[in-house]
Amino acid sequence: MSYQLAADMLERRGVTLASIAEIVYILQSAYYSDLTHEECLASVKAVLGKREVQYTLMTGVALDELAEQGVLPQPLQAVMEADESLYGADETLALGITGVYGMIGLTGFGYLDKIKLGIIGKLNDQEGRIHVFLDDLVAGIAAAASARIAHRHEGARVYPHHTGTE
Amino acid sequence: MSYQLAADMLERRGVTLASIAEIVYILQSAYYSDLTHEECLASVKAVLGKREVQYTLMTGVALDELAEQGVLPQPLQAVMEADESLYGADETLALGITGVYGMIGLTGFGYLDKIKLGIIGKLNDQEGRIHVFLDDLVAGIAAAASARIAHRHEGARVYPHHTGTE
Amino acid sequence: MSYQLAADMLERRGVTLASIAEIVYILQSAYYSDLTHEECLASVKAVLGKREVQYTLMTGVALDELAEQGVLPQPLQAVMEADESLYGADETLALGITGVYGMIGLTGFGYLDKIKLGIIGKLNDQEGRIHVFLDDLVAGIAAAASARIAHRHEGARVYPHHTGTE
Amino acid sequence: MSYQLAADMLERRGVTLASIAEIVYILQSAYYSDLTHEECLASVKAVLGKREVQYTLMTGVALDELAEQGVLPQPLQAVMEADESLYGADETLALGITGVYGMIGLTGFGYLDKIKLGIIGKLNDQEGRIHVFLDDLVAGIAAAASARIAHRHEGARVYPHHTGTE
Repeated sequence: MSYQLAADMLERRGVTLASIAEIVYILQSAYYSDLTHEECLASVKAVLGKREVQYTLMTGVALDELAEQGVLPQPLQAVMEADESLYGADETLALGITGVYGMIGLTGFGYLDKIKLGIIGKLNDQEGRIHVFLDDLVAGIAAAASARIAHRHEGARVYPHHTGTE
Repeated sequence: MSYQLAADMLERRGVTLASIAEIVYILQSAYYSDLTHEECLASVKAVLGKREVQYTLMTGVALDELAEQGVLPQPLQAVMEADESLYGADETLALGITGVYGMIGLTGFGYLDKIKLGIIGKLNDQEGRIHVFLDDLVAGIAAAASARIAHRHEGARVYPHHTGTE
Repeated sequence: MSYQLAADMLERRGVTLASIAEIVYILQSAYYSDLTHEECLASVKAVLGKREVQYTLMTGVALDELAEQGVLPQPLQAVMEADESLYGADETLALGITGVYGMIGLTGFGYLDKIKLGIIGKLNDQEGRIHVFLDDLVAGIAAAASARIAHRHEGARVYPHHTGTE
Repeated sequence: MSYQLAADMLERRGVTLASIAEIVYILQSAYYSDLTHEECLASVKAVLGKREVQYTLMTGVALDELAEQGVLPQPLQAVMEADESLYGADETLALGITGVYGMIGLTGFGYLDKIKLGIIGKLNDQEGRIHVFLDDLVAGIAAAASARIAHRHEGARVYPHHTGTE
């Protein structure tokens, strides 16, 4: 599927693909010295081209937008306005994005969700805006794009094949 | 936390705690011949008393209700009206409930989500109603309550303690 | 990566790719009348070509084999010999395979893990053999291959694009 | 279940409960100024008292120990000796621990797995030792213990109850 639908949703919420690619670059350039911003952007687009990512993203963004409009049923509306720290549906939903290139993405996700790097941190500072889901979803997208880069750069290593019957 | 909040939400959507307990009984009475309906109901209440379960439930129920009102942003509104089979945010969210008594709950969840036992199947047949999330959430609650029963009934088995240094 | 490494491991443990493809066919031919056995086999091979699937598979198979040899540390050795129903590391590990085409795979996984269709059930009946992990891993592979088929067959559906600012 | 079995396994691998409690304290004392080391230790013990945590821990520890002994089948033995960064079975297995107090634990897990705080970092520096699984499992235990503390400290907040019928 085209990544454009997801890109439009993100842009509507103030997140450019370049700002996610920048996070990926910061995370991964420490490991791969020849990594380019173009490759990071391409990796973000590849993640956003996956249907399950798009469905997850549209679900979280809808919840953020409806909370901003104040139309969610109570007590969910109040929980989201308070950005309640014990609310875990955002982490749960982001899990559906984080893992699309394997569970190695979990580490990057948690790290980004904690330190709020780049655009993820900016989302948390916007007054009047509710980004309960979006910051986790962006962290998940960046983590998945990072995992994809790791898979591609490490791709050549070969381990001894099992031949015996031990 | 009190399970009452969750019970009210479920009732509002046409699901009684007894109907979930009934599913748990069908699943688990095959293994534990002394299992009672009361114990199944108590187990459902214990699951619904967990805060993360309540938060997950209120999130999924809100999405179902807003879809019924036709107020979700597009294309999410259309996806939920179609009950799109590739949409996986409902399974993802239910994962946040299914695992509260360990990953052994995954098996029961998938089974119930597939065969649509009892109230889960009835939710799918209600014209004019949208239960994209609720059927998965109820399957997750029943699976977690079943896992809890298994943990309590098997509790006495003891395996040899590691003593050496192998 | 080549799927051959995974195919060899499975064969060593008595599981042919055709036997997994057969499960996929039974699960999915109900939805897609033009589905062929060849397509199911190709889908199984695609799942087994993913590195994270191969790593997960080699980990679970190693645990089964070492348990058969009786060389695991206690109490793990005893837990695996008993095929302890509360042991959930097999379901947890299988989660790393089940989700490679999205969380919609969870349903198929749990269903197969419960009803023990085809080769999955045969694994449980082999005296002297320990297949604590393999049955869950095969269920995970079949579920992921089924999810992949669903994604490909449903691929053309298009939902209205969001254009407004609601 | 008693946490002693898990404590013994951890100690055998060079990890004291106090060293995990220390990580929890560093993570959580920023949020709860009255947090004590005793409470952190009690929280670690509560996590280790859960059967699913014990089963997961014994599985990962067994893999580390067998790798040190050089008796795992190839290519798994080589993958673990190399501490292959794309190997994700350790993160997957740790997921079975991280989530026992809800998915909010995911953030702490990923963060700890990345920055290698305290004992987690020391595990990575021990020559001749293989701790592919243990560092992730300890991160998972600390994350779950942190989530438990958050649940207990935030326990009193009450949100408006839904009263309408929409």
